[in-house]
Amino acid sequence: MDMGKGVGLVETKYITVASHPHELTLESGQHFGPVEVAYETYGELNQRGDNCIIVPHALTGEAHVAGRHTPEDRVAGWWDELIGPGRALDTNKYFVVAANVIGGCCGTTGPKSTNPETGKPYGADFPLITIRDMVQVQYLLLKNLGIRRIKAVIGGSMGGMQVLEWALMYPEMVEAIVPIAASGRLAAQCIAFNAVQREAITGDSDFKGGHYYPGPGPIRGMGLARQIATITYKSDESWASKFGRTFSSIRPQDYYSLDNRFEVEHYLDYQGEKLVQRFDANTYLYLTKAMDLHDLGRGRGEYREVFSRFRGKVLSIGVSSDFLYPKYYQEEIHHFFKQAGADSHYWELISPYGHDAFLIEFKKMSLKIAQFMQTLS
Amino acid sequence: MDMGKGVGLVETKYITVASHPHELTLESGQHFGPVEVAYETYGELNQRGDNCIIVPHALTGEAHVAGRHTPEDRVAGWWDELIGPGRALDTNKYFVVAANVIGGCCGTTGPKSTNPETGKPYGADFPLITIRDMVQVQYLLLKNLGIRRIKAVIGGSMGGMQVLEWALMYPEMVEAIVPIAASGRLAAQCIAFNAVQREAITGDSDFKGGHYYPGPGPIRGMGLARQIATITYKSDESWASKFGRTFSSIRPQDYYSLDNRFEVEHYLDYQGEKLVQRFDANTYLYLTKAMDLHDLGRGRGEYREVFSRFRGKVLSIGVSSDFLYPKYYQEEIHHFFKQAGADSHYWELISPYGHDAFLIEFKKMSLKIAQFMQTLS
Repeated sequence: MDMGKGVGLVETKYITVASHPHELTLESGQHFGPVEVAYETYGELNQRGDNCIIVPHALTGEAHVAGRHTPEDRVAGWWDELIGPGRALDTNKYFVVAANVIGGCCGTTGPKSTNPETGKPYGADFPLITIRDMVQVQYLLLKNLGIRRIKAVIGGSMGGMQVLEWALMYPEMVEAIVPIAASGRLAAQCIAFNAVQREAITGDSDFKGGHYYPGPGPIRGMGLARQIATITYKSDESWASKFGRTFSSIRPQDYYSLDNRFEVEHYLDYQGEKLVQRFDANTYLYLTKAMDLHDLGRGRGEYREVFSRFRGKVLSIGVSSDFLYPKYYQEEIHHFFKQAGADSHYWELISPYGHDAFLIEFKKMSLKIAQFMQTLS
Repeated sequence: MDMGKGVGLVETKYITVASHPHELTLESGQHFGPVEVAYETYGELNQRGDNCIIVPHALTGEAHVAGRHTPEDRVAGWWDELIGPGRALDTNKYFVVAANVIGGCCGTTGPKSTNPETGKPYGADFPLITIRDMVQVQYLLLKNLGIRRIKAVIGGSMGGMQVLEWALMYPEMVEAIVPIAASGRLAAQCIAFNAVQREAITGDSDFKGGHYYPGPGPIRGMGLARQIATITYKSDESWASKFGRTFSSIRPQDYYSLDNRFEVEHYLDYQGEKLVQRFDANTYLYLTKAMDLHDLGRGRGEYREVFSRFRGKVLSIGVSSDFLYPKYYQEEIHHFFKQAGADSHYWELISPYGHDAFLIEFKKMSLKIAQFMQTLS
């Protein structure tokens, strides 16, 4: 299969979507502002303003979804292989928009941004935000860009939660959605995994109640949080085939020592250290809490009934080996949309990679998503 | 089904199995001693000394498997419902022996025991121990008790690893084994989960390199380790049905706060706090490391070939919803024993409770294990 071309060089842009201190009304009722949004776009918006695809990101994602910022960049955006001329999200036809979420740490206003009232970073004074707040801010961005209709909203994990909220909050704007490896409301096991990750961060003495700027912050706790998360993103099978029981110490006498290390442990260390360099611990707390509060039913009535708000097209994708967001949650999403009258489809991505499959299985997803996009008007 | 009677009042006994400083040769080649073992027995040893059942314990278990120490005890031993007159492990017929493992913290010599050379607790100076060392120490205990033949060795998780080593280390003594929710060698995903739990402990500034006695020790880190472990012992389904998305804060305004708490979070806190009160952090490090090193193949040749050392009876039990030790590992154990000529059987415990099912599903296990025991000579 021809996987198309990449989008080439791109840049992150910035726009203020709420300029006054209390302009934005959050789901909590709290007023907040100003809000600046970091975003990227690929392709061209058409005259009617109706060829837009939104790609919300997952927990540690960002607006840089496709292409490279400089010719020297070693890696492209996190969903690069799905986006570009001739790719599943074809930039010859569509205008792809991706924004860093509110509460984030990659350009959009979040806990590490400066609080204009104090001149210091918000830290723990940042207001609680929800998945609906993330979507509302993206909606304001789209208004600013002159977008009137959305062809599709596509994303996995926390991105998938935003996809679902897009459908329920702005059903008249959205033609189709593709939620991947997400659920309609966060399950207790996911809340539990998020809770221990937050405990790892807040238990680090360098966390200082969230007011650790500009210091190094809770490096060790944040690294541990990422290590725990990393385990949940994969599967027993993928760990076994990638690392097995390979031992990393060179000296045989190290084997019978408490300090010995298997390769898999080094990999976890590496994942922890890598995230610490690019991610803010407070954002980690705020976004995992937003995920915990994710519940399509909240304030809308009976859970299974709220799906009837959206009558567009749905492609719900589950991953066969995902134990964090097991596939029956994506089957449930499909089932409830279908029951409510939407043109809904379910597809199981057969993969050994666990939850992370939506960031790995580009060939399989490209085929399926390209096929789905062709069924749209 | 009549579940039989309990064993009544019991007591933990103590015996010195190695009295000299270097009497015990560990698998690592290191010499160690003295070693005292805490153990309990239920039922009577027969004249021939061949009606013994060994019940090794899991990570946070202990020798107190059945009965109560005082009439006031609110809870009985951890496998009480399987052991007693008329129960699956029938104390009218069998002499049941359970010992705390070496490296433990519930009576048997471990890191919190006094090092006779320094007069202080060993702490991080305790030698690395392996599953084979645990079994060797139990073997010495049995010799002391005059036991010549073992009817069966039965246990789950880390107990199951000891069960398997019993079969391979002392095949001539053991008639039957029942390994539950264990594997023949620890998988990478399990090593990864153990590693983050150890990181939670060693990252706590109160850990002090393992020399924290008599101080409180790494309470927060140890609690976090237990919280992480607790998630892995259950299943998405059991978390969902027990807690769902029940919110625990009473005041509605607490909902939109970073400090809000779901019931499942309180439960995790509780599990962490409970273990901290009764368990030693160094023991947690040593035993998880022993599990990481669990590999029936080590030093014995080709992994699948080593199963041929045991030609007795095998009942390998897997739990349908266990994602920590998925059932295909128990199927593999059965398969390799069978292939090597043993009278091996596999039974799937259908349960929503995940890995913990072997500590919960007493009725189902009683039936199956009682049935299996009746097939023995």
